[in-house]
Amino acid sequence: MDAKTTPPRRIGILGGMGPAAAIDLQAKVLAATPATTDREHLPVVVWNVPQVPDRVAAVLGRGPSPVPEMLAGARALEAAGCEAFAVACNTAHHWADELAAGVGIPLLHIADAAVAALARLPIRPMRVGLLATRGTLASGFFAERLARQGFEWLVPTEEEQDRFVAEAIARVKAGDAAGARAPFEAAARALAARGAEAILLGCTELPIAAEGARLPVPVLDASRALAEALVDFSLRR
Amino acid sequence: MDAKTTPPRRIGILGGMGPAAAIDLQAKVLAATPATTDREHLPVVVWNVPQVPDRVAAVLGRGPSPVPEMLAGARALEAAGCEAFAVACNTAHHWADELAAGVGIPLLHIADAAVAALARLPIRPMRVGLLATRGTLASGFFAERLARQGFEWLVPTEEEQDRFVAEAIARVKAGDAAGARAPFEAAARALAARGAEAILLGCTELPIAAEGARLPVPVLDASRALAEALVDFSLRR
Repeated sequence: MDAKTTPPRRIGILGGMGPAAAIDLQAKVLAATPATTDREHLPVVVWNVPQVPDRVAAVLGRGPSPVPEMLAGARALEAAGCEAFAVACNTAHHWADELAAGVGIPLLHIADAAVAALARLPIRPMRVGLLATRGTLASGFFAERLARQGFEWLVPTEEEQDRFVAEAIARVKAGDAAGARAPFEAAARALAARGAEAILLGCTELPIAAEGARLPVPVLDASRALAEALVDFSLRR
Repeated sequence: MDAKTTPPRRIGILGGMGPAAAIDLQAKVLAATPATTDREHLPVVVWNVPQVPDRVAAVLGRGPSPVPEMLAGARALEAAGCEAFAVACNTAHHWADELAAGVGIPLLHIADAAVAALARLPIRPMRVGLLATRGTLASGFFAERLARQGFEWLVPTEEEQDRFVAEAIARVKAGDAAGARAPFEAAARALAARGAEAILLGCTELPIAAEGARLPVPVLDASRALAEALVDFSLRR
């Protein structure tokens, strides 16, 4: 089938976790699409409904499951004719299997996309530093995929997680992107000092903290990798 | 009914015309929402499917109607449980009546929102300068509402429309926001020189051209007014 003559496939974005992350993913899809006219952009449907229980609390066993609300959104995307969907929240991928099992369309997993993008870097890193929420780290879905693809990986210490990663995320959520840069740099530099040859941003707030940061190693944004995977799926590349 | 105790109403955004405008409207809704946590943001569903015939060509009688594609999107938003919807494209409001007649949920009209916002300006303008695409101007839905609310209004000359307005819009669409500012300023200053006491931006590209522009009169962005109307509807304000 020729990608030039077949229409792009409709994709769904399950958002709301939080709502800004879903907008950010849409912007990254737009930027990743080789289009010169409106009509060449992807057909996208977005479920950006933020009335979902807290994901980090749920992963850590301190709150109700967000799965019923997430499933309702995924089913709405399927009903709207989407042929695949993605979730605009790293931590929510803890429930990726349950979610995928509840709908008839494939879930494009953010960690699959990110690890594939790491493997395509011009110089493939041996050891990857992972920055993410405590919930994402506890869930282990990035680590599992990194290991399966032959990467070594390391994460911040407990102290670095609280002082630097959580602080950077909180500042971005509060609208203080400039103030998020210093704690982000501290977290990333600590991983590089312990041997990380690339930094994987596994949290939708961190790319905003990373803007303008000066680091000795390449930084890969999982959201951008997911956007590229959505474009590839839609255009059958 | 107390707005604090009732959940926000789900709203729909009919986008794709172009896809960037739908992302921009979502960002404006997010910014206009009085929220400190994810859960306090509005539940939003977005149909951002850009495979729609060109609106300006259709208004000017030079191309097929976009109504079938728009109706399909509006019906999908209704099926997804939205209680009202908005269209993230000024020119597409030429078909607002047909669209509203085809679904069972209300359309929040961008010109209603913009004219209401003009009437709430600290100093109510007597005469409003309207900057929009040739299709929007030909359709007349802004002019009709401005007149109905007691505003005088004026538009660019044919030459200004081609040299300044179309040029500013084209530069934004091409990603050259900085280059769009000078033609935008020229168009707005010409209207102010002919007596406009406020400038209404009735095209989703123009607010980007207007960033950093220095003008002698206030500028009102119809998209921002529409975002505020969506927040008001959802929160029952």
